[in-house]
Order: sequence, then structure tokens, then C-alpha cells
Amino acid sequence: MQGRSKTAQKVRLHKVNEAGARVRQDRVVVEEPLEIRLEYGPTADRASKSVSVTMRTPGHDFELAAGFLFGEGILPGPADVQEITYCQDAGPQEYNVVSVRLSPGIEPGLERLERNFYTTSSCGVCGKASLEAVEVMGCEPVQAGHPVLDPELIHALPDRLREAQGVFERTGGLHAAGLFDPTGTLQVAREDVGRHNAVDKVVGRCFMDRQLPAGHGVLVVSGRVSFEIVQKAVAAGIGVLVAVGAPSSLAIDLAKRFNVTLVGFTRDGSYNVYAGADRLQGLTG
Amino acid sequence: MQGRSKTAQKVRLHKVNEAGARVRQDRVVVEEPLEIRLEYGPTADRASKSVSVTMRTPGHDFELAAGFLFGEGILPGPADVQEITYCQDAGPQEYNVVSVRLSPGIEPGLERLERNFYTTSSCGVCGKASLEAVEVMGCEPVQAGHPVLDPELIHALPDRLREAQGVFERTGGLHAAGLFDPTGTLQVAREDVGRHNAVDKVVGRCFMDRQLPAGHGVLVVSGRVSFEIVQKAVAAGIGVLVAVGAPSSLAIDLAKRFNVTLVGFTRDGSYNVYAGADRLQGLTG
Repeated sequence: MQGRSKTAQKVRLHKVNEAGARVRQDRVVVEEPLEIRLEYGPTADRASKSVSVTMRTPGHDFELAAGFLFGEGILPGPADVQEITYCQDAGPQEYNVVSVRLSPGIEPGLERLERNFYTTSSCGVCGKASLEAVEVMGCEPVQAGHPVLDPELIHALPDRLREAQGVFERTGGLHAAGLFDPTGTLQVAREDVGRHNAVDKVVGRCFMDRQLPAGHGVLVVSGRVSFEIVQKAVAAGIGVLVAVGAPSSLAIDLAKRFNVTLVGFTRDGSYNVYAGADRLQGLTG
Repeated sequence: MQGRSKTAQKVRLHKVNEAGARVRQDRVVVEEPLEIRLEYGPTADRASKSVSVTMRTPGHDFELAAGFLFGEGILPGPADVQEITYCQDAGPQEYNVVSVRLSPGIEPGLERLERNFYTTSSCGVCGKASLEAVEVMGCEPVQAGHPVLDPELIHALPDRLREAQGVFERTGGLHAAGLFDPTGTLQVAREDVGRHNAVDKVVGRCFMDRQLPAGHGVLVVSGRVSFEIVQKAVAAGIGVLVAVGAPSSLAIDLAKRFNVTLVGFTRDGSYNVYAGADRLQGLTG
């Protein structure tokens, strides 16, 4: 059971425009904290550790937990997970606490949470160290040369993602992420008030369906692309990342280093390819 | 000295549109990690603790560090800070490590970093607990009744903020935040690849200028408004928050609880007032 999944909530507001000010009702996106706990060890002596509290839009919380933990390198594969549930002892906040119980004998790599992700001991704090840290985490470059996509297809993907959203979500405050196959068919779409969470939910769905790495997948995001969004794609082995918004410098560097095709500003009949142009038919690197 | 402050970087890309694919150069926003360290204790036995690594756009790094630490409740006031510098021993990454040295006798409230911000022990994890946690942190409601603004003024603020940005920044991937006085005059504007960072830089500037609390200030942000953006406004004592984008449910709840006027969707000659309408002349709560 995935609990309540109210993504929008009614509010009373003053709308002010050239006609003056009127009181009306509208809907806004719901934001609530979600705590993720890991449970592990023998039944008689089970350990429980809170690993994260994130602000998110309720719904698909188990996918969010699985995708987040996978992206952080804490859950290598679905065989490591025995069960994901809402916490039974959390009282009225039951649906804001998700517990991920590890399979017998599996110990979580908690040192990954302790250590500072962006730094490696050899180099200190810089963009280069951040790229190296993704390698230290165990990520490998995505296999080059496939999928090979029709460049025309790219234009259509953001609209297909928006069509999968509800009316509110198309006008409101929700970010969206969707995974498509190489023919442009949508496999899974998720929304959240947080950009990262929408991607975690998509990756978490793939994780639970044992569909990772998703080497033939095309990940489409409604917003901008920062380092962390590319990092999540790399961890999931996704070869093509298409954004409606702008990429950052470090997002491009990371995409190049890990063989990810990075497309940005996909709107108004145009797009930019910042890395991995060889996956688009007819374009040369 | 504020180090290099390269906000944009040239990249080579393929631009694809109805005319085909062409190779061209464009600029993208720079994203680099920044580590914030606290130094405290007697000179002979000084302690140094790394408290945060955040991805940011270089520039105004001292303000970012001060604003972040103030917003987290770690730095109560400017008298607690002796000096903010780039780390001299960080080697080639010098400009990615900022050290905040506390005044003699000041000990940082590090337990605030250890504890989980969104939870209070009494209530667990939920929206209500998140609101209470802001009180536990020491924040008080902003004084009601002022500033009182001309409702017409609100329409103009996002354009004034955009005018303060460069050409690249108006078209690219940078978020902006600006503090205005009640007559609509811009006091300070800052940009960053991260929404939170842009606000931290503005608040950090006010902190260093001993201008907090900024009870007469109007904070304008280019994007959406989540819980954390309102929390930063509350900590700075700012009474009016105006956003171009949508607010979340919890952002509205927090604004109501702490007497902040929250305006969203400020564009195309219209805006919505979600909380604190009494600060706009002629509107009633």
C-alpha cells in the first residue's frame, strides 16, 4: 500500500490583476517531509537507522526511497531489499516515514552517507573531485554507441511527458521526470515538488522492477540539469538525458566523462546537444 | 578578496532545429562545489570543522557562507564572526573552500547541524513538526502591519530583478533573488545555479552589513517557493516574499504561521496573494 498520495491541496487566495483583487480558491502542490529509515540485522536484534529526511510531494514514496538509496550507492540491487513499508510505529505520521528492510545478511554501506559525496581524499573540493567521487562510488561509463535515436524524436519528448501529467500539474508547481524507450514510448513518469525526487521515483520504479541498468532508456526532465541529476542518470546506467531547461557546466563535464548524451533547452522546435552527439543519427561528435 | 567569480563558461554544442544541426559555441552557468568550514577556539588550539559542501555558482562566496550559517541558526549575529576567508591551505581548490572564523569565546551551535531539522522530538515527521522546528530554532513571527505596499508595485518587481541580471543570466540557467525596500528600490540582487544559494547570498550580504532583521524588506525570487525558501525569509525577519513561480502547501503554512506575506505567480500582469494580504493596501485578509 502506498498510503495517501494527495499531490494538490485547495487554498484560498487573493488574485490581483488589472480587474482588481478578488478572493478565489486554487490548488497548490503538496510538500511534506519524508523520513527514510534502513532496517537491518538479525530479527532478534534488528537495527534501525534514519538515513534521510527530504521534502517531497506524497505519492510513490517507496519508489522515492528505493531510488534515493540506489542513487547514493547504499542499495546495490533489488535482491538486497526484503521489504519496503510505511513505519507501523510512527503514529499519525505513518505515511511520512518509510522503512526499507534489508535482506538477511545484508549490511548497508553507511560509510557512504558519512563521507562527503563531493570530495575525494586525494584531491579536495573541486569540480574534478566531484567527478572522481562518482567513480569512487562504483559508477562506470554508460556503454557507448546505443541507443541510437532519430534526432526528430527528441523534439516530441517533453510534450509526451507533459501529456502524462494532469491538468493541475501542467500549470502548477510540480517537476516531472519520465523514462522513454528508444522509440519514444513512455515507460514511467513521476512528479514531485523537488526535481531530484521526481528522478529518484522514476529510478526507484526501475529498481523495483529489476530494470536497472537502463542502458536503452531516455530520461526526460521538465527543468534544469545540475550535476546531481546527471549523477542519478549515471548510477542508473541511462544513456540519454533530455531536459527542457539549461544544463550547468559540471553537468556537462559529468555527462562527457560517463558517456551520457546530454540534451538541453528542448523547446520551441529546437534543442542543444552538449555531450554524446554520437547517439543521435546523422550528428557527429 | 572574493576570488574568481566566473558565472558562465563557454561550451561547444550541436544546435538542432528545423534548419538542421549546426556546431556552435554557447555559454552555460558554472556549477562548482563550495565547502564551508567553521574555525573556533583559542588560537593555540583552534578547531576546524567542515559543516557543509554545496554545489553553487562561484561568486559572493563569503555572503553564501554567512547567509547559509545564519539561516541554519549557527551564526546568531555578525559580532560572532571574526573573519571570513578562502582557505589558505586548500591548494589548487583554494577558491572552493571558505573558512568562517568565529570571534574569541564564541562556540558554534553545532548540535543544530547534528539534529534533523524537519523533526521535533515531540511530534515526529510531518508538516506540523516542520513548522514547529522553525520555532525551536529560535525564529519568531515577523512583526505584523508593516511594510504596507502599493499593490501595483508588486507587478513591477520581477522585471526590476531581471534588469539587474546580465544578458546571459536572463536567458540561461541562473536563479535570482533580490531584496527591495518598500518603495520598490532594489537593495541587493544575487544569482546562483541553486535557488537556495541565491537567497543565502542576499541574506548573507544583509548579515555582513548588519541589516538583519530586514523587517521592511521585500524578497523577490525568480522561481518557485518551497518550505525552505520561506524558512530563510523568516530567519531574516523579512515580511514580504514575492515569487515568479508557484508556492507549495507547506510554504504557505509556514508564511501564515510567521506573519510573512507570500505572493506567487507574479507574471503577465497578475499575481496571487497566499498569505498576509494585510500588507497590501486595500486588500483585506
